[in-house]
Amino acid sequence: MEGNAVSVVTLCMVLLMVSGHDQQKPNFIVMLMDDMGWGDLGVFGEPNKETPNLDKMAAEGMLFPDFYSANPICSPSRASLLTGRLPIRNGFYTTNAHAHDSYTPQIIMGGIPDSEILLPELLEQAGYRNKIIGKWHLGHRPQYHPLKHGFHEWFGAPNCHFGPFDDIHTPNIPVYRDAEMAGRYYEEFVIDRSTGLSNLTLIYLEEGIKFIEKQTLADEPFYLYWTPDATHEPLYVSEKFYQTSQRGRYGDAVRELDYAVGQILNTLKKLHIEKNTFVFFTSDNGAATYAKTAGGSNGPFLCGKQTTFEGGVREPAIAWWPGQILPGQVSSQVGSTMDLYKTLLDLADVKIPTDRVIDGISLRSTLLNNTVVQRPLFYYRGNELMAVRLGEYKLHLWTFTNPIKEFNRGVDFCPGQYIQNVTTHELTRHDPPLLFHLGRDPGEKYFIKGHTEEYKTVVPVIQSAIDNHRKHMVPGKPQLNMCDQAVMNWAPPGCDKGGNTCLKGPPSKPFLCSWPH
Amino acid sequence: MEGNAVSVVTLCMVLLMVSGHDQQKPNFIVMLMDDMGWGDLGVFGEPNKETPNLDKMAAEGMLFPDFYSANPICSPSRASLLTGRLPIRNGFYTTNAHAHDSYTPQIIMGGIPDSEILLPELLEQAGYRNKIIGKWHLGHRPQYHPLKHGFHEWFGAPNCHFGPFDDIHTPNIPVYRDAEMAGRYYEEFVIDRSTGLSNLTLIYLEEGIKFIEKQTLADEPFYLYWTPDATHEPLYVSEKFYQTSQRGRYGDAVRELDYAVGQILNTLKKLHIEKNTFVFFTSDNGAATYAKTAGGSNGPFLCGKQTTFEGGVREPAIAWWPGQILPGQVSSQVGSTMDLYKTLLDLADVKIPTDRVIDGISLRSTLLNNTVVQRPLFYYRGNELMAVRLGEYKLHLWTFTNPIKEFNRGVDFCPGQYIQNVTTHELTRHDPPLLFHLGRDPGEKYFIKGHTEEYKTVVPVIQSAIDNHRKHMVPGKPQLNMCDQAVMNWAPPGCDKGGNTCLKGPPSKPFLCSWPH
Repeated sequence: MEGNAVSVVTLCMVLLMVSGHDQQKPNFIVMLMDDMGWGDLGVFGEPNKETPNLDKMAAEGMLFPDFYSANPICSPSRASLLTGRLPIRNGFYTTNAHAHDSYTPQIIMGGIPDSEILLPELLEQAGYRNKIIGKWHLGHRPQYHPLKHGFHEWFGAPNCHFGPFDDIHTPNIPVYRDAEMAGRYYEEFVIDRSTGLSNLTLIYLEEGIKFIEKQTLADEPFYLYWTPDATHEPLYVSEKFYQTSQRGRYGDAVRELDYAVGQILNTLKKLHIEKNTFVFFTSDNGAATYAKTAGGSNGPFLCGKQTTFEGGVREPAIAWWPGQILPGQVSSQVGSTMDLYKTLLDLADVKIPTDRVIDGISLRSTLLNNTVVQRPLFYYRGNELMAVRLGEYKLHLWTFTNPIKEFNRGVDFCPGQYIQNVTTHELTRHDPPLLFHLGRDPGEKYFIKGHTEEYKTVVPVIQSAIDNHRKHMVPGKPQLNMCDQAVMNWAPPGCDKGGNTCLKGPPSKPFLCSWPH
Repeated sequence: MEGNAVSVVTLCMVLLMVSGHDQQKPNFIVMLMDDMGWGDLGVFGEPNKETPNLDKMAAEGMLFPDFYSANPICSPSRASLLTGRLPIRNGFYTTNAHAHDSYTPQIIMGGIPDSEILLPELLEQAGYRNKIIGKWHLGHRPQYHPLKHGFHEWFGAPNCHFGPFDDIHTPNIPVYRDAEMAGRYYEEFVIDRSTGLSNLTLIYLEEGIKFIEKQTLADEPFYLYWTPDATHEPLYVSEKFYQTSQRGRYGDAVRELDYAVGQILNTLKKLHIEKNTFVFFTSDNGAATYAKTAGGSNGPFLCGKQTTFEGGVREPAIAWWPGQILPGQVSSQVGSTMDLYKTLLDLADVKIPTDRVIDGISLRSTLLNNTVVQRPLFYYRGNELMAVRLGEYKLHLWTFTNPIKEFNRGVDFCPGQYIQNVTTHELTRHDPPLLFHLGRDPGEKYFIKGHTEEYKTVVPVIQSAIDNHRKHMVPGKPQLNMCDQAVMNWAPPGCDKGGNTCLKGPPSKPFLCSWPH
């Protein structure tokens, strides 16, 4: 009898442990900044050192100096983060022009296709509650909304906070609470364009903290995709941080975001869930260098947003998970925002789709054991493979900044920088391609000459990675080709409720979108 | 009786404490790197993050992101560090050409004048034992040697480790042990030019550790001026660090220096003198960007060595003093290598000369209490005041990189960078001067237009600081005007001893030195 009792107790304990282990899915917070550059963090060398919370996050976690966005502009980068796939596969590109950038302005007809399996859709199946707070940017027509693609909750906007618009020729951007609009930017959600004052970052912070608290109480694992956009033009900041930075309005916005990151991490500690919450901080593309002094910094890297030089795609990146990720580590893993897809699924013990190519890899072992795997990284611009990184080497097959006509009227993606035959204002094919060593030449200034042993040894290896990549490449249907004034945010869901107004747009008249660079 | 005994014991304790306090002069270690750039440290954003010891030193001490050398090239910068005075005062400049850089090659006739009071001369009076290990660069003729200017010990060389020379047309540079040569570079002290292999950094490290140990045993306060030159071309590194960096040979040299810094700090801890030793790490000028991929990084700053843009003079700087300087601090104090003069004297409680202008300030309060004082910073090139920094503003009165003829044959001080009317190839006077805000524009890319309120408010304030500076400026006699083949290191003291050879130079024929930029 005694022996049996012991067996039962043992069995119960084992069952409890097993079930406990099953239920104890880690929470996920992905913090995605908007147009914030690699060089904007103190820990990455911003000379004013105004990001104490992010620097502390790095000191407590793992820093990734070699981390990339999947694309040098917003919508394709964000679509790739949530699908784990390159824009050329998930459709977030255009064929209206060769190697031109495209995104989701108000007149875009397309958005994220139903055929794509988004990260939150899979996490939902594993019992996660998913919320996006901030900018979506994967299509603003109702069929493309977050709640149609795996998120349970949404507070934020489908497009950039451009404006103010007049609601006659162009409607102001709606802010959604879940499936229905709660108001519009510059109307219910104030951004003062002359001062740059707005409480939006604080609102996004409060939304985040509330969600974390709610989920902790409910004891239900969560995925919070926190995507504030204060560092995207037009810049905004609340009074608390107004004119507090040495870096001007942009720095004010960075300081407030840094504060918000600190508040979120403190919330996790206060709720004692920090050891069960994996947090990742990064940005959607390089700093918009053409914003001049109102823009961010890409540190020592070449050019910025819109380009496939390092300044366009190298991102600040920090992983934080006390008890799981050792403090003060630096990873030399070449990583991508696309890796968050498989990484989160891996950590949540969720099966990864096998019916499609996923470009991202799982960084689980990198995070937990600081291992490094070699993997090629493909730099696309629109429908063209522009460059490839393998190890410390980067090979440019094509180079392009923006057309000379744009440049001559002051649109400069590489202000103060000029590298002959590299920062080209024509889309330029390089055959033989241009080889750089990013370790000793992070600024992509000194190409390795074709007659050298180094060139002759390295290029065939990268070429073979390219061949392999191309062999398995089946481009998705381009989603960013067609535009229409009628699809703008005239009458979003909920516009007829709670004091909102439904606006009347023009009749539908689709046309090929024009993508200038 | 008992009461009296207690009184005597108490008195003795008080006397011991007082005398202990008096005797307990802090030790000083100034580590001065050669051509290492601001952007070469992980903590300042070097993307390969290969300086764990320096990053740790910063985490344990105080980081200075706004720290400057007194001049964008070696000899004047070093003369200023040891005199606390601008080159224009201590004579380390030339009048052979307007606003041209000059230094102490083998043919230079001049050196540090006896009229200058060097830091070690004053520390000597306070009981310090002073040693310089590495490059001197304040004149190689015997009257200019370190032992004639306050140092008690010297191991190192008077000039750059250029070579190998043939000892017929040009002698190899001697390495001194105190007042006499111990051998020559490329002869007794091996540097393999083809591989870059040399044990010199390890030798300099060992010399440093031995000196620290000796002084600790002797219980005598010391000033160690540790000036290794492995990051100056031709780069060198020992086998241990050979080809270990992602950054090529330059990175190998940085890694070895980082290791050496770690070893020195560990020695202090091992000897339990770290709480009584103030250590300061910095560099003599910006990275030599014209060295192309073999050179260092100035991070987000403009141009490099030889120029008065930020890349030429903004230096990596870390202060370390456990128990006195709180860990993990960042100072926004605008500092200068010239400040080490008054700072060390202040910490050693030594009287500062009052018979001359000292340009440096004491950073004691900055170090111990993280206070900040506003002070103008003057950027000279040769005999011309090129620019002034006050607060976050920098005003360029003159700009100059190098002559167009040099540039056209490939000598580029700003590779990959070009800013119209700023990176000028003629010495260009700006009247009205060019104003930049280094906080929001650390790369000096966007000058503030003359019609703005900001310009109109700021420029008069800076102009008044300039007027005040000029009013009290009495230039010293220029020491770097005259050259002579006869003064080269043909027959240094000690050349007739221990297997060394005294070489025969040509007869004296002084001429005006030619300074190309």
